[in-house]
Amino acid sequence: MEPPLDVERKTVLIILDGLGDRRTASRNTPLESAKKPVMDEMAFKGVQGIHYPLRPGVPVGSGLSHTLLFGYEESDYPGRGVYEAFGAGYDLGPNDIAFRINFATVDSNFVVKDRRAGRREDFIHEMVEDLVDVLNKNPFGIEIIIDVYEGYRGVMILRGDFFSLVGDMDPQKEGKPIRFFKDNPTGNILNWIVMKSYEILNNHPLNKKREQLGIPKANVILIRGAGKVKNRQMFEEKYGIKGMGIADRNLYLGVARYFGLDVFKVEDEKKIDVLLKHKNEYDFFFVHFKLTDVYGHDGKWEEKKSYIEYVDSLLSPLLEEDFIVAITGDHSTPVVLKNHSGDPVPILIYGGDRDDSRYFGEYEAVKGRLGILSGKDVIYTLFNQAGNLLEVGK
Amino acid sequence: MEPPLDVERKTVLIILDGLGDRRTASRNTPLESAKKPVMDEMAFKGVQGIHYPLRPGVPVGSGLSHTLLFGYEESDYPGRGVYEAFGAGYDLGPNDIAFRINFATVDSNFVVKDRRAGRREDFIHEMVEDLVDVLNKNPFGIEIIIDVYEGYRGVMILRGDFFSLVGDMDPQKEGKPIRFFKDNPTGNILNWIVMKSYEILNNHPLNKKREQLGIPKANVILIRGAGKVKNRQMFEEKYGIKGMGIADRNLYLGVARYFGLDVFKVEDEKKIDVLLKHKNEYDFFFVHFKLTDVYGHDGKWEEKKSYIEYVDSLLSPLLEEDFIVAITGDHSTPVVLKNHSGDPVPILIYGGDRDDSRYFGEYEAVKGRLGILSGKDVIYTLFNQAGNLLEVGK
Repeated sequence: MEPPLDVERKTVLIILDGLGDRRTASRNTPLESAKKPVMDEMAFKGVQGIHYPLRPGVPVGSGLSHTLLFGYEESDYPGRGVYEAFGAGYDLGPNDIAFRINFATVDSNFVVKDRRAGRREDFIHEMVEDLVDVLNKNPFGIEIIIDVYEGYRGVMILRGDFFSLVGDMDPQKEGKPIRFFKDNPTGNILNWIVMKSYEILNNHPLNKKREQLGIPKANVILIRGAGKVKNRQMFEEKYGIKGMGIADRNLYLGVARYFGLDVFKVEDEKKIDVLLKHKNEYDFFFVHFKLTDVYGHDGKWEEKKSYIEYVDSLLSPLLEEDFIVAITGDHSTPVVLKNHSGDPVPILIYGGDRDDSRYFGEYEAVKGRLGILSGKDVIYTLFNQAGNLLEVGK
Repeated sequence: MEPPLDVERKTVLIILDGLGDRRTASRNTPLESAKKPVMDEMAFKGVQGIHYPLRPGVPVGSGLSHTLLFGYEESDYPGRGVYEAFGAGYDLGPNDIAFRINFATVDSNFVVKDRRAGRREDFIHEMVEDLVDVLNKNPFGIEIIIDVYEGYRGVMILRGDFFSLVGDMDPQKEGKPIRFFKDNPTGNILNWIVMKSYEILNNHPLNKKREQLGIPKANVILIRGAGKVKNRQMFEEKYGIKGMGIADRNLYLGVARYFGLDVFKVEDEKKIDVLLKHKNEYDFFFVHFKLTDVYGHDGKWEEKKSYIEYVDSLLSPLLEEDFIVAITGDHSTPVVLKNHSGDPVPILIYGGDRDDSRYFGEYEAVKGRLGILSGKDVIYTLFNQAGNLLEVGK
């Protein structure tokens, strides 16, 4: 069913994470309210629609939503840990298993006191070095990799050949005990890792130092997002073009790299510069901006709006290029919910067709000609503006 | 899941092939720009929406798109050759295999010089008679039918009982060699047919005559669109009503006939007359107009617009009848692309419900009450206006 591409123009997919929002009785959305002349010009001259990432009303995590945005199926999603591992530069063998981890604070009964260890990374890197040394003297004959790259968060990879997928141990709420894994080979290893991590970390001199500084101890690792690589069609094979991913968080670099795109890790300010510098080397560019989602989670309407304005100011060079540009979110993170929602997400596509929609906004986009898409339609809809796709059922 | 019909009114599905188009910065679409008082009145008094033939952004061939428009699934599409055979009046047994063919010009290394033999039919019928005589003395014990009915194009049917589906041999581009079929029973027969057709045709006196007249030799047959009949629910069984198909090209007559409709081959000018003449005999009428697609492929904006105006003038008698009329395309063929695209297609339904949309056009239709349909929803949406459908899950 896949139509390989014979695109004539280069395409850019710009994701503002958690972009979509929701009005309240007294307030429009950050996107509607933002001064964003570039996006508004693109919407005015281009076409709009909305997309539901998976299905209407159903909130989706960023790993899955990006899988869909790249035109893959829900069943292609390999789990968060895999994307984190790929984003951190690791490759995974078919029997390796990877997890998203974070450092937390538990009491001696493994009741979670602080799921994020005060969101403080102090000394964690140094303690992890000691921890990994001990863990790799494990009785299971496996290799254990822990890489912490976002303060108190990172990835754990187990290399061996007898792993099965497991659930999450994170109880999601503080005041509840860790949910240890079930009694099976993989679960037993993970439970051993958790016990051992507590044993090493709880008495670690650097955790004593954290305590003295008034910072919660980082005395356990919480394990979630188990994943293994799946058979997958690489992006270039699926679409016949070379793609590049530009982001600053490993999860998003990881999705891109997992499907075979070349990835570049760079802060927001330089993302469009990097794209333009490489514009002759690739046919497709995925550019990811994170903070719209973060401000949505934090309930910060004003900051979400300002960040949209900031991203808008970065995009103006794209008006000078002969690209087809899509701008959308991977899901909605409404300020009023402080969480992902199943709301629709606005999408604009600039550089080809034009419709009667006037500016970029959640409630204007639905009037556009693209209508209502599913997340996995987005990339086809973008490519469709760029030239000739091969027909299905010719 | 099929809701059989208890329709009270007769329904008409009018397809303008490749109707949908796309604006450019400087130009509206042919449909938007056409003076088409009948369609505009129907849109104003009726309801509108858009449909994506298969899924958003994905271009679809006309055979598959019509399968979907008749309310069938992608998996019901039997391949282009089958529809061509049925459209040419042949019936196929379960083991027969049918192909779309065209006559092309190759050099002695089977490199394609002209995929369409100059688009000239001169002497092809006469040469085919000689060719078929030779081919039917084949060592495989099969019957080979070749029927050329569109200049240099037609259908080939193999009757036997050991055929499997094969790919296309058309390299799609000139200057590339024919892609011979893989070594298997069916592939070997086809390769023999291709070699033999070159042997017979290349030295045929009538091809020498073409050469003398400055017309490229028609010295090989290009074979594509392999298909075999599938188990299928006939239209009357599926919907409980009798249908009639009116078209001038075999492909479209073929889709209708394959699903059990009675078909009438007649030029554009007389299509509505034929419908009205038979209006008491059938409950459903499929009427197909081809040239919107042809002008799209040729990049002829003005001609596409004029043809829509011409079709509009033919439709005025329908305003006097108590029919439910749907007008749409099977896909978009934007002038700017000269090819099928994955753009949405506008649809109007007249005679029942009415919404606030004002005229028939791609960008107005999306504002209508039908919203966004998939191609396979179209016929149900039409029937739904005509009376009572049996409920699903009652």
